[in-house]
Amino acid sequence: KGTLSPKLMKEKLLTYHESDIADALKYLKSDERFRLYSLLGLQLLSQVLAHTDDRNIYIDELPLKKQEEILHYLDSTLAIEYLKGLSKTERNTLIDLMDEERKTELSLINSFDEDEIGSRMTTNYIQIEEGISIEKAMSSLIAQAAENDNISTIYVVDSDGLFEGAIDLTDLIIARKGTNLDEITVTSYPYVYATELIDDCIERLKDYREDSIPVLNSDNKLCGALTGQELSQLIDDEMGDDYAKLAGLSAEEELNEPLKMSMKKRLPWLIILLALGLGVSSVVGAFESVVAQLTIIISFQSLILDMAGNVGTQSLAVTIRVLMDEKLSFKQKLLLVLKEIKIGFANGFLLSIISLLIIFAYLFLLKGQPINYAILYASCASISLIIAIVLSSFTGTVVPLLFKKIKIDPAVASGPLITTINDLVAIVTYYGLAWVLLIGVFNL
Amino acid sequence: KGTLSPKLMKEKLLTYHESDIADALKYLKSDERFRLYSLLGLQLLSQVLAHTDDRNIYIDELPLKKQEEILHYLDSTLAIEYLKGLSKTERNTLIDLMDEERKTELSLINSFDEDEIGSRMTTNYIQIEEGISIEKAMSSLIAQAAENDNISTIYVVDSDGLFEGAIDLTDLIIARKGTNLDEITVTSYPYVYATELIDDCIERLKDYREDSIPVLNSDNKLCGALTGQELSQLIDDEMGDDYAKLAGLSAEEELNEPLKMSMKKRLPWLIILLALGLGVSSVVGAFESVVAQLTIIISFQSLILDMAGNVGTQSLAVTIRVLMDEKLSFKQKLLLVLKEIKIGFANGFLLSIISLLIIFAYLFLLKGQPINYAILYASCASISLIIAIVLSSFTGTVVPLLFKKIKIDPAVASGPLITTINDLVAIVTYYGLAWVLLIGVFNL
Repeated sequence: KGTLSPKLMKEKLLTYHESDIADALKYLKSDERFRLYSLLGLQLLSQVLAHTDDRNIYIDELPLKKQEEILHYLDSTLAIEYLKGLSKTERNTLIDLMDEERKTELSLINSFDEDEIGSRMTTNYIQIEEGISIEKAMSSLIAQAAENDNISTIYVVDSDGLFEGAIDLTDLIIARKGTNLDEITVTSYPYVYATELIDDCIERLKDYREDSIPVLNSDNKLCGALTGQELSQLIDDEMGDDYAKLAGLSAEEELNEPLKMSMKKRLPWLIILLALGLGVSSVVGAFESVVAQLTIIISFQSLILDMAGNVGTQSLAVTIRVLMDEKLSFKQKLLLVLKEIKIGFANGFLLSIISLLIIFAYLFLLKGQPINYAILYASCASISLIIAIVLSSFTGTVVPLLFKKIKIDPAVASGPLITTINDLVAIVTYYGLAWVLLIGVFNL
Repeated sequence: KGTLSPKLMKEKLLTYHESDIADALKYLKSDERFRLYSLLGLQLLSQVLAHTDDRNIYIDELPLKKQEEILHYLDSTLAIEYLKGLSKTERNTLIDLMDEERKTELSLINSFDEDEIGSRMTTNYIQIEEGISIEKAMSSLIAQAAENDNISTIYVVDSDGLFEGAIDLTDLIIARKGTNLDEITVTSYPYVYATELIDDCIERLKDYREDSIPVLNSDNKLCGALTGQELSQLIDDEMGDDYAKLAGLSAEEELNEPLKMSMKKRLPWLIILLALGLGVSSVVGAFESVVAQLTIIISFQSLILDMAGNVGTQSLAVTIRVLMDEKLSFKQKLLLVLKEIKIGFANGFLLSIISLLIIFAYLFLLKGQPINYAILYASCASISLIIAIVLSSFTGTVVPLLFKKIKIDPAVASGPLITTINDLVAIVTYYGLAWVLLIGVFNL
């Protein structure tokens, strides 16, 4: 930077991918950014901005007229996202500058709720009318392609705009002259309604694995398209959401969001967990007399609770992923539960043998307990361990299945409940067994 | 089924999307499946099979010659997956039936390790030579499009096969006659080497958001392409992997995999967690004398450990997601740690106030402890709670950052370590405070 002529600078810039230029923006000062903007031109700049999450900050820096042009080239979803961040007067000034077509487009997309498909669609698609010749279809494609570059699938509508089907661009390109458009139109092409909830249809759309999905309004008329990019973004978001929920966050967080927003996302679960934890504490409190007689047994409480929790989380995660990917018959669900219990038993058996030996060695050799005491304590801990593990595998599988059945998102609801159930089961098993076995039977 | 003529049946079948036909396969008996296969024809059948995970079972049912044809139409990656499941003789018989081109193609892709990009590429791409006219480029495209339907991006190579750049099909279609191919060739188009590790380059490729990425061999010659579908599959797998790791699974599991395989995926972490848990137990054991004097305090052990664990997991999950999506400067890392500590403090403060009140009420009203005892116990528990929460936020953020720094996957390594550190911190804080404050200062 500095010594090269603008023409050479521009040529050099063009050897970088938009994504790389976008990455570089944050390292530039604002006057350097402005020089870069004018070298890129607004169309290319809008492509660069599509690759960074800090886009709104950069758009803010631009003069009003340029903002409008950037918003013209930017994806509708991103343009709306920017507009929503503005004050009402700023937004109206900017919208007034736009041409009618763009205005209608943005207000259409903006008319849908955030969780409806329509809010994520684009009007960047190619549409042709049924019954025309291959040549006409091709020239209609060429005419629309300059404005709409999402061309790999072409949508066919009838004269009323009703969605008929889709043509794979490959088929159009290799079709011989005189071929009927009908012959290459796929009428079984999947579609989605603009008012469908994203959560409800995303799994179905994912299964189709198509490049783009046409979006219809309630009159079955084509009104938009969901691009492959947007679709994978939605799938990505959904998985990120599940990930966040497993970690006890109510939604995914972003690096630059304000403290208050992050707190809000985390606090609800923490309060629920605290309430449940206090419940567990009162159960432990009920076993105070057992602990008073055999203080050494509290050493292994955290071990048994943690291991039961770990195994339960494994079963939970597996079950949630399976539920997300497939529709299960009752028999398959039963098999899943059985399998989880079997794995729990097999792993639990191995783990309890290991812990039996180590706990015995610890008590006998390190703590200097008499050998029969050490054997009894160690057995009590390891028997509780295997029982707690098997029960946790069971709850970790059954609870999300039940939640799914009563139409509650298993990823949201089952985390804290399973932790609590497992804690309770483990505590009752452990202290109960210690009470019956060690105090009741062997009078330690 | 049954009464319709084959022609009508076929027409009816074609009104369903391949994905829906694939879903129906499992409900059919094997003779019904065979009738369906012959109605579909092998090309369509291969598309249907691409939509189901049970594809290998269905291919197994077919006669050898049909298997070969299905493998011809199927994506190379899927074809190789099927071949790998066969015995050596079966595999060789089947490969012998293939044409030379397909053989070379499959053996090329098969020559890469599973974690290398080359193993996931396809030879389904369009390639044209630099310097030809727009018309020639178009007819070369049409000639290749029948075999290769991945046409939205066309790769340009020089006469030696060196990768030059890519042309967006839209640009080719709207280009005027006489335009130089150079003018529409994007030379900054991203590419990837076949021997690059998937884990290393997937984040980069994701950022480019292109429909397909050319794959080059070590001589910089074009040898394959990564389709958008494959790319989102890889991203999906990576996220699924992170999800599994957060739950303490070493890899994602499938519904139908054998028990032994599932055990293997879960046992390693469980054994590590057991070992760490035993370590924690021995620390609890060191506080035996404290517990012997104040048995009621063990009631709240699980509460403090669980809450510290929950907060730590939240910070961990946020940090891992941030690390996955962005490259952070040192300053940004520092800010992230600070932010997490702040959130930890803010949430911890609220939670400890709530628990102070509830624990006091529990001890004083329910357990009938004297008021000054109840106040002291409750204060001790809630002070420990906030300290443990803040420290957990810190470790939950710093440990994955450190792991990333020393090039260990933070998602794999930090889970059990953080749980253990947080448990230890919480236990030492809680019992230490109880010892110093309750026994030392107030002589309870």
